[in-house]
Amino acid sequence: MTKMLKGIAASDGIAAAKAYMLVQPDLSFSEASIDDPAAEIKRLENAVDAAKDELKIIKEKAAANLGAEEAEVFEAHLTILSDPELMGNINDKIKDEKVNAEKALKDVTDTFIAMFEGMTDNAYMQERAGDIRDVTKRVLSHLLGVTLPNPALIDEEVVIVAHDLTPSDTAQLDRKYVKGFITDIGGRTSHSAIMSRTLEIPAIVGSGSATTTISEGQTVIIDGIEGNALVDPSSEELKNYAEKAEAFAKQKAEWKELKDAKTVTANGKNFILGANIGTPKDVEGANDNGAEAVGLFRSEFLYMDASELPSEDDQFEAYKQAVEGMNGKQVVVRTMDIGGDKELPYLPLPEEMNPFLGYRAIRISLDRQDIFRTQLRALLRASNYGKLAIMFPMIATVKEFKEAKAIFEEEKEKLVKKGTSVSNDIEVGMMMEIPAAAMIADKLAKYSDFFSIGTNDLIQYSMAADRGNERVSYLYQPYNPSILRLVKNIIDASHKEGKWTGMCGEMAGDQIAVPILAGLGLDEFSMSATSILKTRSLMKKIDTTKMQELAAKATNDCETTEEVIELVKQYTK
Amino acid sequence: MTKMLKGIAASDGIAAAKAYMLVQPDLSFSEASIDDPAAEIKRLENAVDAAKDELKIIKEKAAANLGAEEAEVFEAHLTILSDPELMGNINDKIKDEKVNAEKALKDVTDTFIAMFEGMTDNAYMQERAGDIRDVTKRVLSHLLGVTLPNPALIDEEVVIVAHDLTPSDTAQLDRKYVKGFITDIGGRTSHSAIMSRTLEIPAIVGSGSATTTISEGQTVIIDGIEGNALVDPSSEELKNYAEKAEAFAKQKAEWKELKDAKTVTANGKNFILGANIGTPKDVEGANDNGAEAVGLFRSEFLYMDASELPSEDDQFEAYKQAVEGMNGKQVVVRTMDIGGDKELPYLPLPEEMNPFLGYRAIRISLDRQDIFRTQLRALLRASNYGKLAIMFPMIATVKEFKEAKAIFEEEKEKLVKKGTSVSNDIEVGMMMEIPAAAMIADKLAKYSDFFSIGTNDLIQYSMAADRGNERVSYLYQPYNPSILRLVKNIIDASHKEGKWTGMCGEMAGDQIAVPILAGLGLDEFSMSATSILKTRSLMKKIDTTKMQELAAKATNDCETTEEVIELVKQYTK
Repeated sequence: MTKMLKGIAASDGIAAAKAYMLVQPDLSFSEASIDDPAAEIKRLENAVDAAKDELKIIKEKAAANLGAEEAEVFEAHLTILSDPELMGNINDKIKDEKVNAEKALKDVTDTFIAMFEGMTDNAYMQERAGDIRDVTKRVLSHLLGVTLPNPALIDEEVVIVAHDLTPSDTAQLDRKYVKGFITDIGGRTSHSAIMSRTLEIPAIVGSGSATTTISEGQTVIIDGIEGNALVDPSSEELKNYAEKAEAFAKQKAEWKELKDAKTVTANGKNFILGANIGTPKDVEGANDNGAEAVGLFRSEFLYMDASELPSEDDQFEAYKQAVEGMNGKQVVVRTMDIGGDKELPYLPLPEEMNPFLGYRAIRISLDRQDIFRTQLRALLRASNYGKLAIMFPMIATVKEFKEAKAIFEEEKEKLVKKGTSVSNDIEVGMMMEIPAAAMIADKLAKYSDFFSIGTNDLIQYSMAADRGNERVSYLYQPYNPSILRLVKNIIDASHKEGKWTGMCGEMAGDQIAVPILAGLGLDEFSMSATSILKTRSLMKKIDTTKMQELAAKATNDCETTEEVIELVKQYTK
Repeated sequence: MTKMLKGIAASDGIAAAKAYMLVQPDLSFSEASIDDPAAEIKRLENAVDAAKDELKIIKEKAAANLGAEEAEVFEAHLTILSDPELMGNINDKIKDEKVNAEKALKDVTDTFIAMFEGMTDNAYMQERAGDIRDVTKRVLSHLLGVTLPNPALIDEEVVIVAHDLTPSDTAQLDRKYVKGFITDIGGRTSHSAIMSRTLEIPAIVGSGSATTTISEGQTVIIDGIEGNALVDPSSEELKNYAEKAEAFAKQKAEWKELKDAKTVTANGKNFILGANIGTPKDVEGANDNGAEAVGLFRSEFLYMDASELPSEDDQFEAYKQAVEGMNGKQVVVRTMDIGGDKELPYLPLPEEMNPFLGYRAIRISLDRQDIFRTQLRALLRASNYGKLAIMFPMIATVKEFKEAKAIFEEEKEKLVKKGTSVSNDIEVGMMMEIPAAAMIADKLAKYSDFFSIGTNDLIQYSMAADRGNERVSYLYQPYNPSILRLVKNIIDASHKEGKWTGMCGEMAGDQIAVPILAGLGLDEFSMSATSILKTRSLMKKIDTTKMQELAAKATNDCETTEEVIELVKQYTK
């Protein structure tokens, strides 16, 4: 009988295929004394040989399906398995201590992993720790006679079933064969969810029990629109979903036609839909999806993708490329937002008990003005090549904004004095992502040219709940009246001073939030490029007068998230 | 010439005495190969013997001045230094690897420390890791020929100068001799600041440079009222401060006379001043200092001071003792607030990246209802013995409050059905410490009988700044207009529903905040018992009509913390 799983709709679309269980097998083992070390060493050698054979196949497949770079990691694994020091140590341990191969393997590799991880000044060697961990698992699987999942070997259409997907899991997936995926954990802003939208693969996250409900090879329908999965569907159900998939494909084609259109509501109001980007290369995707602006350029990727602080010239080139690529449309660059969960290997930050409440973003920039001023100069120079705006992340107080702005003005003046050409209408704004800042938005609006609401952080601080923490993720509630009131306060304050407010968190592309946000008068919505056309289509159906009524009810009358969702459904059906 | 240091006034009073530098010397060393292991082992033995001699003296002094319990730790250190396994390993390392004693000592003790710290299921053994660390430092100091500070040996009046004071530092201090202290770091809510108020020792924290400005033996005046320290004062300055100290002593005597008085302002308005307590034993101090209520009973201490979950009966006895001790005055018990930085050895919590944004307080109680229901039953039973109120910590949403309240009602009904006598007027309220809750205070006020504002957490979440993190502690701004607006929102919302609001964070006893809070209409101020009489005296001088004007200006017109402080000075001079 068909089983149904409900989860969080992470990426639109319908898919049906056989389940591929991307699940780690149990690799626990008992320590044991052995009598015959020679036999035990032979056992280990057999397992290592089997692992090598497997790795060679995976490497070839990966090279053919995914590319040379993805295949390299398996070459590195093979090298480790041929390392005489590592293997020698394991053999010695079996001989000297008469322990079983599992125990010897684990102990020796643990030592190597600890050693490599300890090389905190050498990112390359640190990464090797991960490789040894992977290789150890593979050899252990052969010793224990269990099978590791090998996603790189997939060569037919599948739906991936996993507890969660890590970046290294997704790197091994061939888009040609992966038709959809479903995970046990995660929310709309988890890595796996964001990845599914970027790859445009239908996906459900946070289903709770996908890995325990579904078995390898069962047919699974993923409905990424509703967040439902059907396991072992009837032919009737398969047919219904095929129709639904076709309808969705048709809808997508219609959306594509909106690429060069303005964003206009049913009653003729205009909004700006922008894209969030990480590097200048993403400008292409933004344009392809009809972005009217870049609402957020996450400049920290320039820092994270480098092995040392990027120079003023390197940054200048990147910003110039982005503003030129957008052909006169506005590009809002957020100054370096590192710290929290974003680290730079060459800029050691202090160990913190609560990094999300710590030394990060503008707090680092105001402290390390050498880094900040270099970035500002690069931005100022790039301002000649298009419409550039700058915003500061994690501003909590008026004093911080004034300090950051004053540094900007100083660098501008210095450049002008040197005869460097600099645009005279660079808007200088700030992220609104700290509750205290939202509470004094009226004061900040006197100094800031615009606000950009960063909902991911604003929600996690307002709710005092780390959005990456499974145990409290139920408190990540974008539609809670408390959050909507903060958002309203920010928008109203900016308008009162003749300024504008954008939003660049996940919420800006959320189909339940958009009607409320339109009603609250949000000026710019910036989102994953792939969400723009769908949102433009939604906007066409919206009457802002009605949405103002909806927004007023949601912020004044509703007590809970659930009541707000119910209200939106009533107003948009 | 006299040098002046400015810091944060942490504890009232004036003191003058010689400086005692509680500063760790530099214990770094170079690794070296040695030719003569026997000589090196001899060098180590001499250092160990010297350390033992020192420890014996310290142990005797500690036993005489501080008590047997404080002396025990040094006995433990002596035992470690006589451990043949530890010492044998160090000697072997010197012999086998021909390294210097410093290196051998460090390597071997590091291994032992790691081993003990790894015993995560044995709190006793884990604590031994700290002892080994302390002993290693002491031996190292003798190897390097530098002197460790030994606060237990102090036998004359001193002012302690330290970078920071840890709980173990303060445990070694004899109150008889310590007249004041000054630290480089810390704020009004740091451990050292709270400790200074509890011990009623004049103190300045966060001076920035006390340890680098002051030298051992210099005379230092600590002005804990203004937050100033004078180093090497002139006889004129000493005379002035002696007068100031006398005036302060007089003032304190006046305060004592207010012990049994009501709290009344200059224009005849009443407020309630309560005490924050951790255990029923603290009730005595609350009564001695004229508390009109217990505004916060931190019930988690019942859990933290135990080796297993406290039984319903044990808890019942504790709550009963507290309500009886307060003789009909209200005692507000906060249900278990663990998680964050508060751990229970017998209740392992998940490792979290940001524990302050994690699984804690009511989030644990709603999940672990077995623990929660036991506590509620104990509270319900104790309600017969005085005026008991209950509040839930870390409520973020209406849904959470309703869930917690429903569980309370269920347990009440069950007890009543069983014939257990239970008070019928237990007020059930909530902590207001999460920004999202403050934003919907109007909705929560429909269900909650009262609010108690927990400013320490409310400020850290609103500012997105961990108050324990040195690098961002500048953002702990109780007077920032953003915080004052949240506080106003909470108070106004409660009054609109005919409910009351208290405050139980550090801010409630802060002499700059109290006038504003009185102006905002806060009903109950709960604080360290030692701050009550001073605050009652301050209230006598306050005209609430004028303070309402002050509060309105602070919340409407001020942009920064600095402006609010300036305004309060104008209004209270």
